[in-house]
Amino acid sequence: MSAPVPRPQLDALRARARGHGPLPMAVAWPCSIDALDAALAAERDGLIEAVLVGPRARIDATAQSAGLSGAKLRIEESDDDPRAAACLAVDLAKRGRVGALMKGSLHTDEFLGAALARDAGLRTARRVSHAFVLDVPGLGRPLLVSDCVVNIAPDLAAKRDIVQNAIDLAHALGIASPKVALLSAIEDVNPAIAATVDAAALSKMADRGQIEGGIVDGPLGFDNAVSAEAARIKGIVSPVAGAPDVLVVPALEAGNILYKALVRLGGAECAGIILGTRVPIVLTSRADSRECRIASCALAVVHAHAARAAAPAAAQGTG
Amino acid sequence: MSAPVPRPQLDALRARARGHGPLPMAVAWPCSIDALDAALAAERDGLIEAVLVGPRARIDATAQSAGLSGAKLRIEESDDDPRAAACLAVDLAKRGRVGALMKGSLHTDEFLGAALARDAGLRTARRVSHAFVLDVPGLGRPLLVSDCVVNIAPDLAAKRDIVQNAIDLAHALGIASPKVALLSAIEDVNPAIAATVDAAALSKMADRGQIEGGIVDGPLGFDNAVSAEAARIKGIVSPVAGAPDVLVVPALEAGNILYKALVRLGGAECAGIILGTRVPIVLTSRADSRECRIASCALAVVHAHAARAAAPAAAQGTG
Repeated sequence: MSAPVPRPQLDALRARARGHGPLPMAVAWPCSIDALDAALAAERDGLIEAVLVGPRARIDATAQSAGLSGAKLRIEESDDDPRAAACLAVDLAKRGRVGALMKGSLHTDEFLGAALARDAGLRTARRVSHAFVLDVPGLGRPLLVSDCVVNIAPDLAAKRDIVQNAIDLAHALGIASPKVALLSAIEDVNPAIAATVDAAALSKMADRGQIEGGIVDGPLGFDNAVSAEAARIKGIVSPVAGAPDVLVVPALEAGNILYKALVRLGGAECAGIILGTRVPIVLTSRADSRECRIASCALAVVHAHAARAAAPAAAQGTG
Repeated sequence: MSAPVPRPQLDALRARARGHGPLPMAVAWPCSIDALDAALAAERDGLIEAVLVGPRARIDATAQSAGLSGAKLRIEESDDDPRAAACLAVDLAKRGRVGALMKGSLHTDEFLGAALARDAGLRTARRVSHAFVLDVPGLGRPLLVSDCVVNIAPDLAAKRDIVQNAIDLAHALGIASPKVALLSAIEDVNPAIAATVDAAALSKMADRGQIEGGIVDGPLGFDNAVSAEAARIKGIVSPVAGAPDVLVVPALEAGNILYKALVRLGGAECAGIILGTRVPIVLTSRADSRECRIASCALAVVHAHAARAAAPAAAQGTG
């Protein structure tokens, strides 16, 4: 594991983001070495302008511990309280001072509580969802997976938005007509497995224009989704089988186990953001790699740029 | 994909099975080339004595198509009906004529309908479950995963048996005190995610001796289950984190997606059997590789031998 693994998909993602020029991004409570280091590395990489939100003394001390005390730090000072930092970062996004948000080293619940509060101004008519872009060795294209992080047991309405959010992100990555595979354990619609019924409904919603911009099909087993040969053997005729751009999982546990398995045992690496908000939000976990954190910033940049291009007025709306 | 991938765990499994000498195994309806070829390959490999159950004419024709017409075929003739072949195969197991069952090319539902019927005589007091043994490149040990195939949404009672069945299988593989990780998306017990509550209950059942023979802990995220470093970073103290022998998934969809992802994108290969019946049962899917089918026979042999050694009387009981 000492030689760096090539990450062509994440490299391409970073190059795409750099092409847009750096995006101001508020980093809430960057008070651990990992959190601060990743934000400043993404800045040096030309991806973001890191706006560090938190108490100056604590951020300076973290920079010193990280050997980054020489760096020019752009700090928006908050009270010495993670919740206060989160609220200030969210406010910067609401006022258009930054185009994206990133969680620092505070708790996820505390951060999301501030970012997704109804009165915080970042919600839209869309449900909030999370999507990963996976760089799987040898696959030759990015693989989007949603939702592995936010929605525990989404109902059909929530799944519609999960699918639409993921399609929009695929567009931002330059995939004009993404193929979306709706995963379950099997390919048949089985009343005993609710996700197969949801998948059938979502497929039909795409047929009727209730989901737009992608080719949507399911239910599909994982094997038939990713392998044209497996689908052929089982006699599955599907416009997405064999080459999906997006995998939509039936529920959070399945997705969470899936992406962690591909990262931990399958040699994959990932970038991830929260979608369906007025600005993209980078969540980070303590166990995330530096590469994942930086690529997630790139993903936020690419998505923010595409969202602004698609709806410049909506970006200033009240949501 | 042209050079054969080394499969040290499946090689060790086959070697272990061969050490027991060939086990008579009834193959129900071996009427596709893949099904017949795998059974006869497992026989040539010294794993099983293949008892082919079905209409002689159809089996002979299949053998001819497969270029196996010279092989000595041990046929138990049934009516020309898959269901009749399944029932005859099950009856051979019930009467102790064979020590394991394998599905041929009939439908899974038809096969399991015969094998698991209450009056077929193969059920025990244990719930029926399925377990895979995965050979993950570089992992250095077999990884058991259950239940990815049979139980759609097991309740706590069913999960207890899923865990115990998997522990018993690990013993059969020579793992004296298997470490069992109960997977969910997170490590905390969260009332909104039922599997985390089940995992807590199962952990305590192991403490109280209601589950025996293994070290059981959960809930654990996949990352903390398989990576001691990830667990350390998150401050998770667990006797199984970092080196689990068994992963128990929260429900079928999560498990089904997990094992297929590791096989299709993670370079893994698998062997699988049904547990909790008086004889182990090899299920096969049309998309399974030949290697998987043969290794699954080996797994059945190893499990059948261990079950007989543990309870010679029970093997003749009425279940």
